[in-house]
Amino acid sequence: MPNRYNFRSDEYGGSLENRVRLFREIIEETRDAVGDSMGVAVRFSVDELRGAEGLEADKEGREIVEMLAELPDLWDVNISEWHNDSQTSRFAAEGYQEPFIDFVKQVTTKPVVGVGRYTTPDRMVSIVEKGIVDMIGAARPSIADPFLPRKIEEGRIDDIRECIGCNICVAWDSMKAPMRCSQNPTNGEEWRRGWHPDRISTKSDDGAVLVVGAGPAGLEAALAAGQRGLDVMLAEAVDELGGRVSRESRLPGLAAWARVRDYRGYQISQMANVEIYKSSALSAEQILEYGIAHVAIATGARWRSDGYGRQHQFPIAGMESGNLFTPDDIMSGNRPSGSVLIYDDDHYYMGSVVAEQLIADGCRVVFATPHAVVASWTDYTLEQHRIQARLLELGVEVVTSHALQEISSLDATLACIYSGKTRLVDASSVVMVTSRLPEDAVYQELAADADRLRESGIVTLKQIGDCHGPATIAAAVYETGAVSTLRLSTI
Amino acid sequence: MPNRYNFRSDEYGGSLENRVRLFREIIEETRDAVGDSMGVAVRFSVDELRGAEGLEADKEGREIVEMLAELPDLWDVNISEWHNDSQTSRFAAEGYQEPFIDFVKQVTTKPVVGVGRYTTPDRMVSIVEKGIVDMIGAARPSIADPFLPRKIEEGRIDDIRECIGCNICVAWDSMKAPMRCSQNPTNGEEWRRGWHPDRISTKSDDGAVLVVGAGPAGLEAALAAGQRGLDVMLAEAVDELGGRVSRESRLPGLAAWARVRDYRGYQISQMANVEIYKSSALSAEQILEYGIAHVAIATGARWRSDGYGRQHQFPIAGMESGNLFTPDDIMSGNRPSGSVLIYDDDHYYMGSVVAEQLIADGCRVVFATPHAVVASWTDYTLEQHRIQARLLELGVEVVTSHALQEISSLDATLACIYSGKTRLVDASSVVMVTSRLPEDAVYQELAADADRLRESGIVTLKQIGDCHGPATIAAAVYETGAVSTLRLSTI
Repeated sequence: MPNRYNFRSDEYGGSLENRVRLFREIIEETRDAVGDSMGVAVRFSVDELRGAEGLEADKEGREIVEMLAELPDLWDVNISEWHNDSQTSRFAAEGYQEPFIDFVKQVTTKPVVGVGRYTTPDRMVSIVEKGIVDMIGAARPSIADPFLPRKIEEGRIDDIRECIGCNICVAWDSMKAPMRCSQNPTNGEEWRRGWHPDRISTKSDDGAVLVVGAGPAGLEAALAAGQRGLDVMLAEAVDELGGRVSRESRLPGLAAWARVRDYRGYQISQMANVEIYKSSALSAEQILEYGIAHVAIATGARWRSDGYGRQHQFPIAGMESGNLFTPDDIMSGNRPSGSVLIYDDDHYYMGSVVAEQLIADGCRVVFATPHAVVASWTDYTLEQHRIQARLLELGVEVVTSHALQEISSLDATLACIYSGKTRLVDASSVVMVTSRLPEDAVYQELAADADRLRESGIVTLKQIGDCHGPATIAAAVYETGAVSTLRLSTI
Repeated sequence: MPNRYNFRSDEYGGSLENRVRLFREIIEETRDAVGDSMGVAVRFSVDELRGAEGLEADKEGREIVEMLAELPDLWDVNISEWHNDSQTSRFAAEGYQEPFIDFVKQVTTKPVVGVGRYTTPDRMVSIVEKGIVDMIGAARPSIADPFLPRKIEEGRIDDIRECIGCNICVAWDSMKAPMRCSQNPTNGEEWRRGWHPDRISTKSDDGAVLVVGAGPAGLEAALAAGQRGLDVMLAEAVDELGGRVSRESRLPGLAAWARVRDYRGYQISQMANVEIYKSSALSAEQILEYGIAHVAIATGARWRSDGYGRQHQFPIAGMESGNLFTPDDIMSGNRPSGSVLIYDDDHYYMGSVVAEQLIADGCRVVFATPHAVVASWTDYTLEQHRIQARLLELGVEVVTSHALQEISSLDATLACIYSGKTRLVDASSVVMVTSRLPEDAVYQELAADADRLRESGIVTLKQIGDCHGPATIAAAVYETGAVSTLRLSTI
């Protein structure tokens, strides 16, 4: 491996022994300083995923562990940097670090811990039994469920709230905001709000709860209300639970996101006080007729087709002539063929997974965005580089720093956001990935007539999740915990 | 103007009167709340610089001021957003907001304040006399010199430490770090370190000071030591003061940066205890012979030509065959002709000003960078969009997200940082704008022999500014204040 930073000519530069000297001395001096009072654990990244330009697990990575083999009390081994170490489920399967670290136990007698977004007990047992590690490190899986180890110990496997590998936790951390989690609404609020991941105060009201919509917010609402001991009716318009997580989990790379549905679906299926009604779209009229005391409307959101997004707050010219699609169309099976322009002014994952889907469907895809990179927000989830690389590998033509200016039935006009210079893209269809609107018609109809609400017996009416404000899955799950009456002590 | 965000159909949407209603009510209710206890100032941006897609000063911008004319006690008018309101000297001259706000005093009897990076008293007087404003707002000029108003009042015009308009203050603020200033080393440290912009503790030592190099750090060192009452010798190798600020100020758009030199040059020229020696390159041997008690080495930095930067920590293949230049060559007049590739792996302003210079020289310029935008760091100084737009307007071919892979005497190979796919650029010359190395040979030679230093009578030896670590002008000026013995009380 060539040196990228160490150009010393003294005893800390040159040979591998010299370059390892500082690392060795730090471990030795730490041992001297702490004596027998504690063990000294060492984290060492054995591979940088830079090929010959970086540290490699089968070359100096291994040699270094061999040289220092018995010095630490615990080897904590992984790959660097953060975007390699903390890959999402979209890009790496559980245990993706094993091929890099599997040599370590062969060269040391000390215990070894490894990471790799382990969430399933079977896989964890397997890599311990195979002699790859002695302990499992699991930060993100513990964020999703801090009681993961205890639930394994007690054999409560179905109670594990399994990390979906979306890195929304990393994103919030990178933004220096309180951490959020798509699975665990209490994450980051244990101390500030006194929330417990698995325990919730019991009901302070005997009124029943009607939850309309079984997406992330509706499921979390039904679960939380059920845990509180309230009688809950959960009504879902279609014949499966999950809402957006079910739809999105069928797009390329997002299968693990269905865990948001699966955990909650199983938990509420075990509750005698929660009734689930699928294929049960409810009108405002029906909800008034039921007259259930507490009503939470969680009817989700829909993608806009008019181009309104970060760049444009005006209709795009020629939209009526274009063959327009939205991610909702793609997810429901209404898909274009031939030459397709995906216009991404949303900048999170959706545009890029739609691109992967359409390539799989056999389309020729141009991906245009006003931002300078594909899926710019995914910098926060450590995915940006991998997403853009994947689209290019798949043969997607990427046009960055260009906004959609005009659509015709045969092509689309893009304009450079810096110079205004335009270019034509041959595209018989355009998929608009720009922003979403709440599906809040039922809520608005109910909220418009306070007298009728009162007369019907409805005491509280809330809109929750994307129906309240289209956002992330984590936001929907969190908001249900934070602002709905279902967690607040007013019920 | 079309509505971008307000789609209300009630009394707050639709007509201009309706859309202004909330603004009016806030002012009225604020007046009601504070009564006569204080004046109510209102800041209003009269133009968004979006043409017909936004608010325009000669249309609704003016109408709104007319509608609310006598309501506030003070009108504070400007243009929005921040990147328009706080333009740098590279892109906007002093008073650049005047054409947008000059109508305001014609439609209100209330006093009007405006901004526009006003730094020169003559200009300030002129726009008050012309009846454009009654008061000058000046945030950045006050950061550079908090005593600007007092110095004008006292007629001490040459003592004003004039803002250079670089927006490094904005950058540090955007990074949520303590604010820094290219001109005022004490900015942001008044409370924490007890530093005063103009007052400095007097000497606690009678030893003289030798400052080697009269760039930003050397000038600041000579000034600070001079203010403290020490005898100072300032030796500069070339025949003008200023170092990098003099060289860079001759590049397109950076003329105002010479104020870093001019303020200090004038101040020390007035000090009997500071002697300035131009055209006086000093060797380590000469410095030892002088044997002055306190020596500060401020010999600056040089641009590397080997490609080592953010992306590459290895020599780039074929460098020996290429016709290579660095920004130092460009600034010293050693310039390429014909087809030139500028490779920017530095990401601040230098690559783009070199591009402007070479276009002015008649070159055909390709600007390549591994980042997704030109001059990505200038997002922090609010200049990124303007820089990339300007290069495109000038006809520079911009290639983003590509790293330099190989150079030959006829062309250069760029590789996409996502896909690795390569492309050839026809370029007979390459300007490497990647990173800098300290010019610290004299310092290293002196520091290597502590015995000789002692024997010569040198008590303290410091390297300061870019010679210590190549960084911003602000860092050099600040560091001289912060870490050199010249401000610390040990002298």
